[in-house]
Amino acid sequence: MSRNYQLSIFALGGLNEIGKNMYAIESGDDIIVIDCGNKFPDESLLGIDLIVPDVTYLEENREKVRALIVTHGHEDHIGGIPFFLKKINVPVYATRFTLGLIELKLREHKILRESELNEIDSNSNLTFDKIKVNFFKVNHSIPDCLGIVFHTPEGTIVHTGDFKFDLTPANNEHSDIHKMAEIGKDGVLLLISESTNAERPGFTPSEQRVGEHVFEAFVKAKRKVIISTFASNINRVQQVVEACVRTNRKLALLGRSMLNVVDVAMERGYLDVPDGMLIEQDQIHEYPPEQVVILCTGSQGEPNAALARLSTGNFRGVEILPEDTVIFAAGPIPGNERNVTTIVDNLYTLGAHVIYGSGSTSGMHVSGHGYQEDLKLMCTLMRPKYFIPIHGEYRMLHHHRMLAESVGVEPGNTFIISNGDVVDIEDGVARQTREVHAGNTYVDGIGLGDVGEIVLRDRKQLSEDGMLVIILTMSKRDRKLVSDPDTVTRGFVYARNNEELLGDINRLAAKTINELHGRNKNDWGSMKQQLKKSLGQYIFAQVKKKPMILPIIIEV
Amino acid sequence: MSRNYQLSIFALGGLNEIGKNMYAIESGDDIIVIDCGNKFPDESLLGIDLIVPDVTYLEENREKVRALIVTHGHEDHIGGIPFFLKKINVPVYATRFTLGLIELKLREHKILRESELNEIDSNSNLTFDKIKVNFFKVNHSIPDCLGIVFHTPEGTIVHTGDFKFDLTPANNEHSDIHKMAEIGKDGVLLLISESTNAERPGFTPSEQRVGEHVFEAFVKAKRKVIISTFASNINRVQQVVEACVRTNRKLALLGRSMLNVVDVAMERGYLDVPDGMLIEQDQIHEYPPEQVVILCTGSQGEPNAALARLSTGNFRGVEILPEDTVIFAAGPIPGNERNVTTIVDNLYTLGAHVIYGSGSTSGMHVSGHGYQEDLKLMCTLMRPKYFIPIHGEYRMLHHHRMLAESVGVEPGNTFIISNGDVVDIEDGVARQTREVHAGNTYVDGIGLGDVGEIVLRDRKQLSEDGMLVIILTMSKRDRKLVSDPDTVTRGFVYARNNEELLGDINRLAAKTINELHGRNKNDWGSMKQQLKKSLGQYIFAQVKKKPMILPIIIEV
Repeated sequence: MSRNYQLSIFALGGLNEIGKNMYAIESGDDIIVIDCGNKFPDESLLGIDLIVPDVTYLEENREKVRALIVTHGHEDHIGGIPFFLKKINVPVYATRFTLGLIELKLREHKILRESELNEIDSNSNLTFDKIKVNFFKVNHSIPDCLGIVFHTPEGTIVHTGDFKFDLTPANNEHSDIHKMAEIGKDGVLLLISESTNAERPGFTPSEQRVGEHVFEAFVKAKRKVIISTFASNINRVQQVVEACVRTNRKLALLGRSMLNVVDVAMERGYLDVPDGMLIEQDQIHEYPPEQVVILCTGSQGEPNAALARLSTGNFRGVEILPEDTVIFAAGPIPGNERNVTTIVDNLYTLGAHVIYGSGSTSGMHVSGHGYQEDLKLMCTLMRPKYFIPIHGEYRMLHHHRMLAESVGVEPGNTFIISNGDVVDIEDGVARQTREVHAGNTYVDGIGLGDVGEIVLRDRKQLSEDGMLVIILTMSKRDRKLVSDPDTVTRGFVYARNNEELLGDINRLAAKTINELHGRNKNDWGSMKQQLKKSLGQYIFAQVKKKPMILPIIIEV
Repeated sequence: MSRNYQLSIFALGGLNEIGKNMYAIESGDDIIVIDCGNKFPDESLLGIDLIVPDVTYLEENREKVRALIVTHGHEDHIGGIPFFLKKINVPVYATRFTLGLIELKLREHKILRESELNEIDSNSNLTFDKIKVNFFKVNHSIPDCLGIVFHTPEGTIVHTGDFKFDLTPANNEHSDIHKMAEIGKDGVLLLISESTNAERPGFTPSEQRVGEHVFEAFVKAKRKVIISTFASNINRVQQVVEACVRTNRKLALLGRSMLNVVDVAMERGYLDVPDGMLIEQDQIHEYPPEQVVILCTGSQGEPNAALARLSTGNFRGVEILPEDTVIFAAGPIPGNERNVTTIVDNLYTLGAHVIYGSGSTSGMHVSGHGYQEDLKLMCTLMRPKYFIPIHGEYRMLHHHRMLAESVGVEPGNTFIISNGDVVDIEDGVARQTREVHAGNTYVDGIGLGDVGEIVLRDRKQLSEDGMLVIILTMSKRDRKLVSDPDTVTRGFVYARNNEELLGDINRLAAKTINELHGRNKNDWGSMKQQLKKSLGQYIFAQVKKKPMILPIIIEV
């Protein structure tokens, strides 16, 4: 049976994980890619700087890839773009603010000039071969976010992007809730919706709540205020600006990404700062402390960000003093709690008053991701036949399915898939039957993808028990040792305190080699293998550690 | 001025950290030690298994050390005891249940026979040279916990141990609240009180709350129930037993520490299990699933514990099946969230119904540490002149000071000290002026304390960028290379994909050596140093990594 037309949906990142979002819609001969994010490695990926999606499938089908459409400017949606564009220079479509952040990245990677960037807004229409695309505005924790509507021969597919319903958004940019209702009324074949907060009951609180708490804290603060948040949360930055206006304080910005993003936002009209309010870092001391606010990066406890350096007195020219107020205007993302509390401890030792904790305890943070009722509202508006929960770990996708079913999606019509799984839709019927290649590409130093499982496994062993190089100088002629073996260790035991152990190891190595020689097993391969085995066993019996053993044979 | 008598208080662990609690009271020629816990390393301490207090000060004053009194049997209070007793075999005093857990440890370390263990209870009195000791019962998340009262010539010192006020404790063992009131009435010179939950408002909920939720979940569960909690929380285990009685289910135990601790608890009368209720692991399949409960370890997501293995289908003979119910009867301790959610994800993929989350969302956990109102109540009962908050990170100690001041401790009479800082009391006046040696001792494999900063720094470098051994075979006579240099790398880049880079490195090494030779700088030391420098710079410029470079010179 020949196929005339097929519609397929899959993810190259973002499923069963938080981060590295990358989804694709393949409609006939068009592939439209949605987002290309990065993810930060957990501690098991030793030395890895960044993870981006493996785009092998797209490279193999590069003649079909028409566009990369970006829903918004967060790292987990744009952080992989430079790496992707270096492989396939596809046209990029994004809103004005999102493009500003993408340009910063492309400039850093020195590929801005050759990239093809196209500005869109929520009223744009794009047309590809068999697919038409338009958009709707959503609220999130960064300006200028889009949901995407794909009109295909099989029907309409909606990708929500990251969203919440904020009825009183800080920037007065409301969700296109009427447009969403209309899309739903016209019929949606498939809804692809984000799942980050599918475990949390209720509606997400409005961003305005944070503004009120910030203002109150500024009023109470006796001396200077240091407030830290995500640089990209420009609506929150705007609320800080407004609290400065109302309390007559000057505003100084610290931290490279805060300066960069605020620059983009002001230049492109997303942030309104009164003339004369912004001061430079070296002007801070010119004002009485009760007239100063410092807005900085580092709310997640990042060890090199401005707040961490301020908390240890290592930020040149700016000091936190007793009675200063420090505000974490962002709750800790799971995994960052440890780094955040270390900074809180340091701030208290400086005598500062510290406002920290989750948004629900401090009032200084609300999530940008919809809670259960937001997710149900989206699904209710769209009334989809099929549903794919995305952007989340398995339990979030699982809960999102239950939410979708509670508002009318038929049981069996939800697909919980993994990266690479393909949902094909033909004649109005969706099936999950096949997969495409998907995976992680590790960015380590300058290399992309040259660090694989072998290198990581070695790093793990090295990190836990160190290594031991054993050097054997051997006669080429008769394959006998010409001098005593010698060892060099690093990260294993402290050599000076363990001379006896290291001496025993050398003697055992010599004995092992001599025995092999006696049994005529004197090829270099057997020798190395036997050395690793017998030294490994001996060392483990002595000290319960398994250092990496590297026998080096020098033929003379 | 000669000192006839001096009273001093200090900590060797437990301040500005969670874990490794160890406090001491030095009264004239007596040193009484309170607790000796361990702490688990964070990810920066590569390969380290355990951290215990550095007890150098006590070793140097071993003739004064009279006793180790243990408040309760948690790891952060007893985990360092075997290491301590191997250095100073001091008499240990603890309650019956606590002793049971200590004995397990001493047996494992093969020092049970020579240890001097003394059973006490809340009515015991101990007398040393100038110090009398008695006790009061407190509630916590393990049975048989004590607070300690030291009657010294300077006045009374109270150490709370870990505590909460639970007015309806699951074991009906109430706090000695009247005794505490009496101690306070008689006058307390110094209160030393734990600070774990000093940031949390309100009173700690009662342990009974968990029992009710467990029972309800058992009633609702359609098939078998797997419930995981801390083995040492015997009161919670008792509540699981009672829910089994009420729902007519058999109980199987999985996990070595669960089996060990339940054994101790049953044998010593802290746990009451009806005859015939306990079944062995291999009997589970003999009962219909709706009549079975499995109680296991691993509530914190520990990768080798029973629950983690069950969640990946790697527990021989026991399987989690669709519609089974899995309960995390313990909230994740900060830092363990990641491991817990990985298991939750796996359990959902198996089709299980999962109850997880913090105690306040799931109802399946309450803290054993008093919240702010509990802490204020303790301080109110004791009415101390001086106050030292212990058992916590800096911000917790800071909040605890504010709580103590809010119930009447004079500002200036609280000492927030670090491990090693000494508070001396003379003529009724406390001062913090000096310090004793304190620190971390790292347990790594079989060695204790042989892994120091150098080894850890090496492990860190090895873990991030791997290493590169460069082998130079050189003539002893004229100090020239006799063959091309050779490299061996591990954990750096994948050698097969980087032959060009490695070839360049070999050539640069040869060039470096030849240049040095030309400048007559041909001692081995200079050569190695220069190789590290020039290869390091070259590699970093090429690939932005800094592998450990180990030049090895073979003289022939």
